[in-house]
Amino acid sequence: MSEAPKANAVVGQSGGPTGTINASLAGVIEEVCKHPEIENLYGSIHAVQGVVNENFVDLKNLSISVLEGMAGCSSAALGSSRDKPDEEYCAKILDVFKKRNIRYFFYIGGNDSANTANIVNIMAAEVGYEMRAFHIPKTIDNDLLVTDHCPGYGTAAKFVACALMGDDLDNRALPGIKVDVIMGRHAGFLAAASVLGKQRDDDGPHLVYFPERAVSMDKFLGDVEGVYTKLGRCVVAVSEGIIDTDGITWAEKLAEQKETDAHGNVQLSGTGALADFLTGQIKGKLGAKRVRADTFGYLQRSFVGFQSSVDADEARRCGREAVKFSMNEQSGSVAIKRTGNGDNYAVELVSTELRNVAEKSKTMPDEFINSEGNGVTDAFVEYAMPLTGGLPKTYFLGNYPKV
Amino acid sequence: MSEAPKANAVVGQSGGPTGTINASLAGVIEEVCKHPEIENLYGSIHAVQGVVNENFVDLKNLSISVLEGMAGCSSAALGSSRDKPDEEYCAKILDVFKKRNIRYFFYIGGNDSANTANIVNIMAAEVGYEMRAFHIPKTIDNDLLVTDHCPGYGTAAKFVACALMGDDLDNRALPGIKVDVIMGRHAGFLAAASVLGKQRDDDGPHLVYFPERAVSMDKFLGDVEGVYTKLGRCVVAVSEGIIDTDGITWAEKLAEQKETDAHGNVQLSGTGALADFLTGQIKGKLGAKRVRADTFGYLQRSFVGFQSSVDADEARRCGREAVKFSMNEQSGSVAIKRTGNGDNYAVELVSTELRNVAEKSKTMPDEFINSEGNGVTDAFVEYAMPLTGGLPKTYFLGNYPKV
Repeated sequence: MSEAPKANAVVGQSGGPTGTINASLAGVIEEVCKHPEIENLYGSIHAVQGVVNENFVDLKNLSISVLEGMAGCSSAALGSSRDKPDEEYCAKILDVFKKRNIRYFFYIGGNDSANTANIVNIMAAEVGYEMRAFHIPKTIDNDLLVTDHCPGYGTAAKFVACALMGDDLDNRALPGIKVDVIMGRHAGFLAAASVLGKQRDDDGPHLVYFPERAVSMDKFLGDVEGVYTKLGRCVVAVSEGIIDTDGITWAEKLAEQKETDAHGNVQLSGTGALADFLTGQIKGKLGAKRVRADTFGYLQRSFVGFQSSVDADEARRCGREAVKFSMNEQSGSVAIKRTGNGDNYAVELVSTELRNVAEKSKTMPDEFINSEGNGVTDAFVEYAMPLTGGLPKTYFLGNYPKV
Repeated sequence: MSEAPKANAVVGQSGGPTGTINASLAGVIEEVCKHPEIENLYGSIHAVQGVVNENFVDLKNLSISVLEGMAGCSSAALGSSRDKPDEEYCAKILDVFKKRNIRYFFYIGGNDSANTANIVNIMAAEVGYEMRAFHIPKTIDNDLLVTDHCPGYGTAAKFVACALMGDDLDNRALPGIKVDVIMGRHAGFLAAASVLGKQRDDDGPHLVYFPERAVSMDKFLGDVEGVYTKLGRCVVAVSEGIIDTDGITWAEKLAEQKETDAHGNVQLSGTGALADFLTGQIKGKLGAKRVRADTFGYLQRSFVGFQSSVDADEARRCGREAVKFSMNEQSGSVAIKRTGNGDNYAVELVSTELRNVAEKSKTMPDEFINSEGNGVTDAFVEYAMPLTGGLPKTYFLGNYPKV
């Protein structure tokens, strides 16, 4: 391995923003400032779009107060993009890198971003341009390979858990059937997080459905009816990626206009159609009176002022570690390795090859989903709870002794 | 005025839960414990339902840790009810009061709850049953008369402001058109709160629509197009009670099944239909590519761990004050009177007659709405900002100087 080159660096944020993607950016900035090998740190506005358009801001001269404020603020402070660069796009990126003497590329994003870093890195090697490319993981879906969990997930999980805690209290106060639709196209980690705030035996959500387990409408309605009959109320958390027994997502069956993004995905978020469809089914089949649904939508990734302290800390460390790795390695993706659990929860950061993360994704392991496919196991709670940084207690007096 | 009777008290929580209705309950409990005139304090489970069914819990022996935890927790710890008692129902309430020697009635709720307290109070006077009835205001809609603002509103306003701050950052990161539907059947106070976190000239929401100002679809689409053309993105906050120029709410026009509650109201919350309708219109007429909508739904009133400190403090004071008033007055509704603004924001609590609050409601005054009917005035911001207890700063680097 040759010495770290004296050159400029670029950092970008890609894909859907999260609650802690700016913490990772702050980590990159503060660590870069410790390494004289890196002369300028360019922040690329709107990810790869900013690179090809040379839309750069200087990040080495931010004030500490902006750095710290930004680290605590949700969304992508540099802007993001859904562009999925092909070879031609990556060639343009490489041209700008050469022109600006950029030899460090830090890219915060999901598996598409790891792929972009990988392509640029391979193209640079082919033409003999010395550079270092590092991917810093972020997703609220928690679906990246190698890493134990993704920065961004803990904060989204905290939001969803607190939302369900409040919603379950609301449903205790005014009983009925409530359906909450939660983000997660292929992976149910975020829907699963809905259970993390449960404190009483009869706390909701009473049922949780994941993209990993196909469920028929009959099974779904039967489950809801069972809980409603027993408790006189029912709170259900449903992943937006919930799938029918024929393997087609319910949202897809519903979509009148199958709007797709650049990656060929059907729009799931930003619409209440699935939630309204489910309440319609429940009203029709069960004759229950008070049936409501909410689709949490973009709040799950964008809500300000509500980070998980653990997630914010880890996201920042991932940013710092990417820069440290780049001093000694040629490329890689930062991954979190869990070294302790429960009260001894701890992690260390490692690097893995870009191709191990690029374009791949994972779903919930079987051990996290109950045998009925409508709830989680203790193993999931043990896995996810530390990532929230802790949840508030809830209070309901209705089950106190009567006088 | 005769001396305060030595007797029992009952407290209940009615209508839609809020983030601070438990703070008011805590205020009632702690103040009652200071007055030996009140022997037992019964918490009525599910509001008036709990009274007629004698479903009571003892509130004088709660632990301090439960009292404080509950005060900081959203939703109605006693449960709630949408029952609207008629004379017969109120006669049953009075029967239980007589049987249990209940002569203090503290009822935390909206204008329907003030009405219930008023009816029971009048019936008691008619039969010569000495009792004292006090209403403690709560709504997230902020639509009660006399009081400067309602406990519960500040916390919901903080939630909506933080949601829009995050959503606007998200829309900066991935530009497009975003519509957020916000609670508020007849009053636009909560939709108006969407602007409170704006910090840059081009921060969203760029347009806000209220039930108080009828708007045609043409005007709405023209407004959106204007902002989108200028900024390349647009964030819109729409009250669920938005009304067409013919005086009919858009939601009502949409509702295939006009489900109504006990008060004859069409269901507005718990459905994404209005949001999806608006995005459909925008996509169809403007040809914009990335159009999304979220309906914030019940999160606005139920989300845990996110109280406004000012709201929580005032809600608790209102509970305490109701008990204090009951020692010297026969009946009333607690009202907040603003005695200072801006940095000198301060309030004092007064009592007003139940009939001044019962069954009445207010809407946003003209001075809070801009002349176009699509945004708020500085007067609104001055009014509402202190109630949030302060909002976090947001960060976006995309408008920094380029290098």
